[in-house]
Amino acid sequence: MKKICVVVASRMNYGRVKTLMQSIKDHNDFDLLTIAGASTLLERFGNAVDVMRRDGFTPDKELYYLLEGSLPMTQAKSTGMGILELSTAFSELSPDAIVTVADRFETMSTAISASYMNIPLIHLQGGEVSGNIDDKVRNAITKLSDYHFTCSDESRKRVIEMGEDPDRVFNFGCPSLDLLNNQDLSISNEIMGDYIYLGDEINWELPYILMIQHPVTTSYGQGFFQINETLHALSEIDDIQKIIMWPNVDAGTDEVSKGIRMFREKNLGSGFTYHKNFSPEIYSRIINNAACCVGNSSSFIREASFLGVPAVMVGDRQKDREHGSNVIFSPHQKKEIYKRILSQLDKNRFDQENIFGDGFAGINITKKLSEINFTLK
Amino acid sequence: MKKICVVVASRMNYGRVKTLMQSIKDHNDFDLLTIAGASTLLERFGNAVDVMRRDGFTPDKELYYLLEGSLPMTQAKSTGMGILELSTAFSELSPDAIVTVADRFETMSTAISASYMNIPLIHLQGGEVSGNIDDKVRNAITKLSDYHFTCSDESRKRVIEMGEDPDRVFNFGCPSLDLLNNQDLSISNEIMGDYIYLGDEINWELPYILMIQHPVTTSYGQGFFQINETLHALSEIDDIQKIIMWPNVDAGTDEVSKGIRMFREKNLGSGFTYHKNFSPEIYSRIINNAACCVGNSSSFIREASFLGVPAVMVGDRQKDREHGSNVIFSPHQKKEIYKRILSQLDKNRFDQENIFGDGFAGINITKKLSEINFTLK
Amino acid sequence: MKKICVVVASRMNYGRVKTLMQSIKDHNDFDLLTIAGASTLLERFGNAVDVMRRDGFTPDKELYYLLEGSLPMTQAKSTGMGILELSTAFSELSPDAIVTVADRFETMSTAISASYMNIPLIHLQGGEVSGNIDDKVRNAITKLSDYHFTCSDESRKRVIEMGEDPDRVFNFGCPSLDLLNNQDLSISNEIMGDYIYLGDEINWELPYILMIQHPVTTSYGQGFFQINETLHALSEIDDIQKIIMWPNVDAGTDEVSKGIRMFREKNLGSGFTYHKNFSPEIYSRIINNAACCVGNSSSFIREASFLGVPAVMVGDRQKDREHGSNVIFSPHQKKEIYKRILSQLDKNRFDQENIFGDGFAGINITKKLSEINFTLK
Amino acid sequence: MKKICVVVASRMNYGRVKTLMQSIKDHNDFDLLTIAGASTLLERFGNAVDVMRRDGFTPDKELYYLLEGSLPMTQAKSTGMGILELSTAFSELSPDAIVTVADRFETMSTAISASYMNIPLIHLQGGEVSGNIDDKVRNAITKLSDYHFTCSDESRKRVIEMGEDPDRVFNFGCPSLDLLNNQDLSISNEIMGDYIYLGDEINWELPYILMIQHPVTTSYGQGFFQINETLHALSEIDDIQKIIMWPNVDAGTDEVSKGIRMFREKNLGSGFTYHKNFSPEIYSRIINNAACCVGNSSSFIREASFLGVPAVMVGDRQKDREHGSNVIFSPHQKKEIYKRILSQLDKNRFDQENIFGDGFAGINITKKLSEINFTLK
Repeated sequence: MKKICVVVASRMNYGRVKTLMQSIKDHNDFDLLTIAGASTLLERFGNAVDVMRRDGFTPDKELYYLLEGSLPMTQAKSTGMGILELSTAFSELSPDAIVTVADRFETMSTAISASYMNIPLIHLQGGEVSGNIDDKVRNAITKLSDYHFTCSDESRKRVIEMGEDPDRVFNFGCPSLDLLNNQDLSISNEIMGDYIYLGDEINWELPYILMIQHPVTTSYGQGFFQINETLHALSEIDDIQKIIMWPNVDAGTDEVSKGIRMFREKNLGSGFTYHKNFSPEIYSRIINNAACCVGNSSSFIREASFLGVPAVMVGDRQKDREHGSNVIFSPHQKKEIYKRILSQLDKNRFDQENIFGDGFAGINITKKLSEINFTLK
Repeated sequence: MKKICVVVASRMNYGRVKTLMQSIKDHNDFDLLTIAGASTLLERFGNAVDVMRRDGFTPDKELYYLLEGSLPMTQAKSTGMGILELSTAFSELSPDAIVTVADRFETMSTAISASYMNIPLIHLQGGEVSGNIDDKVRNAITKLSDYHFTCSDESRKRVIEMGEDPDRVFNFGCPSLDLLNNQDLSISNEIMGDYIYLGDEINWELPYILMIQHPVTTSYGQGFFQINETLHALSEIDDIQKIIMWPNVDAGTDEVSKGIRMFREKNLGSGFTYHKNFSPEIYSRIINNAACCVGNSSSFIREASFLGVPAVMVGDRQKDREHGSNVIFSPHQKKEIYKRILSQLDKNRFDQENIFGDGFAGINITKKLSEINFTLK
Repeated sequence: MKKICVVVASRMNYGRVKTLMQSIKDHNDFDLLTIAGASTLLERFGNAVDVMRRDGFTPDKELYYLLEGSLPMTQAKSTGMGILELSTAFSELSPDAIVTVADRFETMSTAISASYMNIPLIHLQGGEVSGNIDDKVRNAITKLSDYHFTCSDESRKRVIEMGEDPDRVFNFGCPSLDLLNNQDLSISNEIMGDYIYLGDEINWELPYILMIQHPVTTSYGQGFFQINETLHALSEIDDIQKIIMWPNVDAGTDEVSKGIRMFREKNLGSGFTYHKNFSPEIYSRIINNAACCVGNSSSFIREASFLGVPAVMVGDRQKDREHGSNVIFSPHQKKEIYKRILSQLDKNRFDQENIFGDGFAGINITKKLSEINFTLK
Repeated sequence: MKKICVVVASRMNYGRVKTLMQSIKDHNDFDLLTIAGASTLLERFGNAVDVMRRDGFTPDKELYYLLEGSLPMTQAKSTGMGILELSTAFSELSPDAIVTVADRFETMSTAISASYMNIPLIHLQGGEVSGNIDDKVRNAITKLSDYHFTCSDESRKRVIEMGEDPDRVFNFGCPSLDLLNNQDLSISNEIMGDYIYLGDEINWELPYILMIQHPVTTSYGQGFFQINETLHALSEIDDIQKIIMWPNVDAGTDEVSKGIRMFREKNLGSGFTYHKNFSPEIYSRIINNAACCVGNSSSFIREASFLGVPAVMVGDRQKDREHGSNVIFSPHQKKEIYKRILSQLDKNRFDQENIFGDGFAGINITKKLSEINFTLK
């Protein structure tokens, strides 16, 4: 039995590896170890660890390493704290390989601890291009990783172009799409009954827009302005409900959160509901039934393109990312955002696109892992 | 005046950037800030900070961040501690750009803090190939860096192949060679008079072999065996003095140091002298006058090829590195090492080679820096 | 000139040392150094550093060391992080003496760094008794301190009984009361005009109750229940406005904050206003004009007794603290709290009591400091 | 079954709790958890963890938290790092009570983590007086502890005088003396055969002096001078072997170690042997058979008084400590040390004294623990 340790360090991470975790757990050759870290443990960010536990993944370690501040400096320090905590954890768990996802600073902590401790590192979602600091970090993680499972053919090509051995770079698509494949993705008030919210009550059976807008690290200091442009654009769209989700923990989170909090306080009764976190399955239903997605969440590119849901991407955060025809981009200006939302609402549904996989990533990655004799590159 | 902050985090780092630091300091456009960190502050590793101070570089910050242990895990943790310390320092100094060198874990700490804090990062010595974990780290740092000053044309090519913008990648050679250029590199007992040593007294005017052998992180656990093979090979070479230098702080340092200490204790009077650190200038004289260099220091490839000094590289640490004809490689076996040293001693001096520069790197890099308007890539 | 470094690590700390900082700054023998740390830098906790800056105290260092989590474990870890940050800062500032206040975990970090670095430590507010974990910490800090400035005679006696040298223990009262002495403490809407709030608008010229309730570390897990009892008791009191302040950062803060947030959301329009932080002077006006104080802030014991303002102390947090006749205690039960508030509202104003000083503490402590030749005890 | 966690963070710690650990392990009511931390894991300091393991105590956690530097500042930082590591460990082990020993900075880390995490803390060796910074730390730990097991009646009295509840303060003597009670404490070359040493070979069956001299934190900077005075005093004593042990890890360790290393290098063949660590049992034999003990180890006061072995205590480190008639004190002057050693060598053996217990501490403390229902004080 080989021990594979998956580090889940944000709510988004979890949706990105859930089906892979399940396949590894179910596979006879593997013993699954899980670490829940950083914002997955925080009430402020929706306690994703509770969802994990409900799904049957009791973490082997729960590690706190986020420093308060939400500054570029404190984000750097959180990366350092993550290394301190994860190194102890890896030393105690001694896995045969470690799985890490995407491009956040928590992922960087995992990559550095694993590399220096000579534990083979498996990276998901390498080779993407988003056009901001995430690119630097993602590519650095690629260079620290021993095996790569990208989410698209173009991404695989890019990882190889950076000098990685093609025999160690695979593309089976993104496990997040597995949650959309052959699932019941309908929504109803009954299904959604027990989710806690702030703001106005929502009727899930009527049309709604889904908004998620994270701070952009490289334009730290502008988050308050940026979220306000988006929120005020939304408030001009009549006759449709709006679901607002809290941003990820990143440098600038406090600016965005403050903007949302202040907006909420002054706009009760105008059809806005505020949520912190959903289980990946529930989130799949919500995105599937949205009339339009607005903001800069990468799920609007990935899940929404697979489902054909219209999306307005605001700002630079995902600007160079490979995307489907469901996506249009907008600058951080209320009027521009407003116009684009109206235009997307007119279009209804787009065709489904398989850029990021066919919905069998988890099982295919696990099969490949079972054929690998893990070594350092 | 632009503030450029150079982080010196090991004695080797210092020799690699000294002339660059001097040129930046002398340049009218720049205000030089320096941070001395990690082993530069430790008596055990030769207190390189004292040499810096004598050279006129009083550090703006002195940062301690090495965790005791000399394990892969503690090396990872030291990287984390480095991030904690450097982030505070960068925040207080607020430089316009940060210079970092090579591929050690202390360099990784600098790269991560700078990246997350949105400070343009200038990396020296990217694109090299050494064939071990240093490659992973060096390449990850390349992906985090905004400007690259490589030490050879091949290295520049490799950095560009990894996807970096050619307009941000320059090759002016390695500043360490500036110290060898048009200098008096003779040696005498008078010049060397006041250096503290352990072991036997050396007559610098008679022939000697220089040995430096660092632990290899990826073969952690074998350092004690490896140093013993080399030391016992050396002890079979008669009629020549041997200068042994202590290894760098790395996972495995304690194994190598213990090997040297035990060997020293039992081999007094057999022509071995033991040293911790030299100023870069003195080190230049020592390597220039060595009959042969033995071990795995990258200076045997760089400085020694520029000077034409014969070298026997032992083990994998530099195995894929670009090198001159002065270098031959040996496995970690006493007999093989012994044979190769004898063979190199026969050859005297090689021709000088300019693979790593022409001895004007510091001044040329500074000139280029003065033409750049620092931005994030 | 002796360098005295005052560490301000929470908004409460600041009110407790402000007049002392001013006197030290004004004194010819002293050079005042200030460090703003922990929650003073956080928007979530009211950015006390901005108030400091407006008062003319530009911090020499701003140090982030709070770990997210609000658990007993993360509180311990924040203490550790504080030591890491403060040690570097003390090393760079090299003060002749360090001033620290009260009994919070940030104070413990200061005490440990100063002690191990052989810097004389001056502690304010030792010898008090509050009847919970703060006692342990406060007394441990007393044993680490070299000079003690207590706030009451009884406290001085207690510090001496713990074995401290009476020649190093002084009582000049609490500097927080200096802010109440011979000051205009009236309130008006004009004065309060520009403070940001959430919830309902307040008319400062009409009666109000002031509520501050911090989590109690030793009953971690009950904070949500406890704050709800108090808030619901308050909501039954008619015809009077209620000012709710956010709790300090402590294990359990998130529980209390969540309780307040949820209550706020559902009780808009019922006369509750929510505030994060005030400058010490403004806070003095608010407490002076309150009809009654409710909760467990130590200011209800200290400032309110000096001013004669009625207070209902809820729960154990201050249960054994020396207090004036203005204070009555209540268990964490809605009905009991309600009854006691009504009873206190009936009483109007109490006589002023000087248990905690006469309002000249800052200047008297500074005078004494100027006579001391700082040594380790 | 109650879980009792013993933290062993230095080789000295281990000798002080070993019999207590054994009794707890053997007791039906208890489940023993052990943490090996800090210098117990370091080869430089004799790897005490190996001795623990050979004795059957496999640590549940091994935690690295010493920062390189050996400065007052790095000692403070190591305390902070210790808190970071121990908090995670306590959280995972969730013991019902934690046992910590004496007065070192590692002990402070334990005390702070336990206190903030609301875990009852049991402290051994409170109430002693050594006359330096250890007093501050020891007394601060006393104030953080919930139960006290002192080593002498006077110490118990002092703990109570500091305000601790007499019902929580017990004196059953020091467990280190249990190792001397009814044991075979003879020595022979056969028994000592396999201990690694540096320097000259020793004949354990001939007379020897035992020297242990730790740095004194509060006179940081004088360690090099101080060790030289002692070593040179010893080198003037003829016809007797000298056993030198390496100092503890403390601010100043590097100074003392350097002094010993340089002395060793130049004084081979003059009857000096150098050792890093012994198991507690072997150490008992060595101290029992020493002709005289020289330096400042507290074992010269504790164990040596129980055994009646003459001791010369050099300097201030233990100057105010309760001691038997076997001890005389000397300043840090070669001549004075020399005279006192000669005088003690004349006296042979002193009477045994039971100041620090009767040799049944471990079993008696465990019995008492089994009667306690652990609560916070």
